[in-house]
Amino acid sequence: MEIIEQIKHYEKILSAYGALEGGGLTRLLYTDEWLECQKRLKEEMEKLGMKAAFDEVGNLFGLIEGSEEGVVSTGSHIDTVVRGGNLDGQFGIVGGLVAIKNLLEKYGRPKKSLQLISLAEEEGSRFPTVFWGSKNVLGLQDNEAVKDIKDSEGLNFVNEMHRCGFDFKKDSKAREVGSFVELHIEQGNLLEKLNKEIGVINAITGQKRYRVKLRGQANHAGTTRMEYRKDAAYGYALIVKAAIEKAIEMDPILVCTFGSVELIPNTVNVVPGECNFSIDCRHPQGQVLDEFASWLEETMVQIAEEKGLEIEIDKWMDERPVPMDEKMIALLENTAKDLGLNYELMHSGAGHDSQIFAEKVPTAMIFVPSIGGISHNINEATAYEDQARGCLLLENALYKLSY
Amino acid sequence: MEIIEQIKHYEKILSAYGALEGGGLTRLLYTDEWLECQKRLKEEMEKLGMKAAFDEVGNLFGLIEGSEEGVVSTGSHIDTVVRGGNLDGQFGIVGGLVAIKNLLEKYGRPKKSLQLISLAEEEGSRFPTVFWGSKNVLGLQDNEAVKDIKDSEGLNFVNEMHRCGFDFKKDSKAREVGSFVELHIEQGNLLEKLNKEIGVINAITGQKRYRVKLRGQANHAGTTRMEYRKDAAYGYALIVKAAIEKAIEMDPILVCTFGSVELIPNTVNVVPGECNFSIDCRHPQGQVLDEFASWLEETMVQIAEEKGLEIEIDKWMDERPVPMDEKMIALLENTAKDLGLNYELMHSGAGHDSQIFAEKVPTAMIFVPSIGGISHNINEATAYEDQARGCLLLENALYKLSY
Repeated sequence: MEIIEQIKHYEKILSAYGALEGGGLTRLLYTDEWLECQKRLKEEMEKLGMKAAFDEVGNLFGLIEGSEEGVVSTGSHIDTVVRGGNLDGQFGIVGGLVAIKNLLEKYGRPKKSLQLISLAEEEGSRFPTVFWGSKNVLGLQDNEAVKDIKDSEGLNFVNEMHRCGFDFKKDSKAREVGSFVELHIEQGNLLEKLNKEIGVINAITGQKRYRVKLRGQANHAGTTRMEYRKDAAYGYALIVKAAIEKAIEMDPILVCTFGSVELIPNTVNVVPGECNFSIDCRHPQGQVLDEFASWLEETMVQIAEEKGLEIEIDKWMDERPVPMDEKMIALLENTAKDLGLNYELMHSGAGHDSQIFAEKVPTAMIFVPSIGGISHNINEATAYEDQARGCLLLENALYKLSY
Repeated sequence: MEIIEQIKHYEKILSAYGALEGGGLTRLLYTDEWLECQKRLKEEMEKLGMKAAFDEVGNLFGLIEGSEEGVVSTGSHIDTVVRGGNLDGQFGIVGGLVAIKNLLEKYGRPKKSLQLISLAEEEGSRFPTVFWGSKNVLGLQDNEAVKDIKDSEGLNFVNEMHRCGFDFKKDSKAREVGSFVELHIEQGNLLEKLNKEIGVINAITGQKRYRVKLRGQANHAGTTRMEYRKDAAYGYALIVKAAIEKAIEMDPILVCTFGSVELIPNTVNVVPGECNFSIDCRHPQGQVLDEFASWLEETMVQIAEEKGLEIEIDKWMDERPVPMDEKMIALLENTAKDLGLNYELMHSGAGHDSQIFAEKVPTAMIFVPSIGGISHNINEATAYEDQARGCLLLENALYKLSY
């Protein structure tokens, strides 16, 4: 299959920058390997006849000028997590190169301009900021918020940006994007479990995160009868069980995760006096998420009261779901049907650049299956046949939008 | 009340050694403050007319020789935990001094010899060994086990023992103890909750401790549907809830504690792939404890299986309950009744020197209430009226045994 060879070709070129021994990538914003990768990508864009240019902050745009007004964009982010795979972000750029190359070879100059965007940053894995790339494209960046941030080695964000030859945007105007289609790996295991070839994304999940503190009374594990205990671990267990079972019962795509916990004093022979834990709950419909969150907050208070515990609930994140554009979803569904692809209409449980684009332009996403659902890991993988199907759907969607 | 003044007198003398600013004691085995305290105690014993002597390892014995054969002993340990109170251990020695002083003043020379023992070590708070004192008294010590152990500063047990002028026993013969009555603070809150003045102990609890590992699959908190998760925190919560509720239902004095937990990776946005936790369960009857433990082990395996988790259960401690001597219990109960004390027949949920003595000689324990159940803490406290009642019961019990 021709398209697989094209994918491998571009994957090999880009994966050289930030490559780890044993596979995978670490390619963080404003590092040498990041800069070299963007520069090499610029050359590859130019080889395809694109007009390629960086914006002030380091986003890279490759443009095929159309014969008429308007722009159609695709792309994803070039940065990775620490010890990530070589598909998260990068596959959307590889897919864009392959799709546009084939469109140009088959159909020549498009009516609307075709634009491939390699976004500077999405992961938040070097500095404590996310979506720096897409927010700058769309004029949504907050320069003040990044002015004093540092990486784990104490290097300043602005200095590192300058070192790479970039700077804050002179004005906050948005660039012309037109519409945006992002090709990405699923990073979950739903497509694999359902034996589907492609995901068409209808929304990016809403997300609430909590820090919860339960305070009981630390006591001797041998001399304190059960009836006199205020056991913070018991309260925690009741909350975890109730919440997970409610989430399962309430809606098949609601997810609720108790990812971290700390007991104090955390000693085998002392009844836990304090329990601090996290909750992450997500759903692509705001109403369902709100309903679950209200139930959860009330239930936690009720359990704490019943067990004689004090409770503090801190909801520190409350991101609304972002729906994809209805017309764009329909276009992707119809195109998938035309191509005979066995697709699933689904939401994204993780955040993506598309949720930023969707605030300003018609946006949609295509997912390809992740083997074992593994991601943010050097073992991240997608079968080349699945990658090819994703590129094919992107190519045909861009054709309908541009030609 | 005369007896309260006597208690305060001896408490003040002994509490000078290892005293902390702001109250409480740190007096660890084979430290200078420990040695000075034992030496000062020897002087106080001699002032009462006792023949006082150390054994090879540093246990201190004060003897009033009786007119007939036989010995009756009381005492407790002189060492403390780090930042402990001034009652745990020390109160048994203070009480012994007060009781014997009053017996001698009231009744003169006893028939059986009266012996006060200040045990070198019980807490295991400096070196990883416990009951070093009582085991040496009874010829049960394991010298090999302590030969190479060190404290947190790297100081060797044997060197520190030599530095204080002590050494391993030349032979493993037991010393004549006759019978043993230990006066101790409760370290729990049962007497306080029940509004009782005194506890007569019928057994020292049996205890099983486990390390449990649940292994599921770490996964993305947003992209992994609930139905496809193997969530180690969920399995943990089900086990904690089931075990605590079973313990409450099964027996009012069964206790079960999940004191420590560790999730891996312990991150807000990752489904926990592994959960390591501790269990401590105790009951003074072996049969009840065994029944609960069997149920618990089976239930944990069953929950793990149902939730697709692997489980490893390591029972690393299995101490049998130690019953106190029936005749000695009856003697304490009858004496408490004679004195009009509002006592509770109860077990000890914590370990004590008496569990070592009980292996060789008729043994019993008296508890006085701990304010708020607080112990192993500089705020450890018992009302002087309650301390006096404990001394009075000890004095009257020793009278019945010795005169």
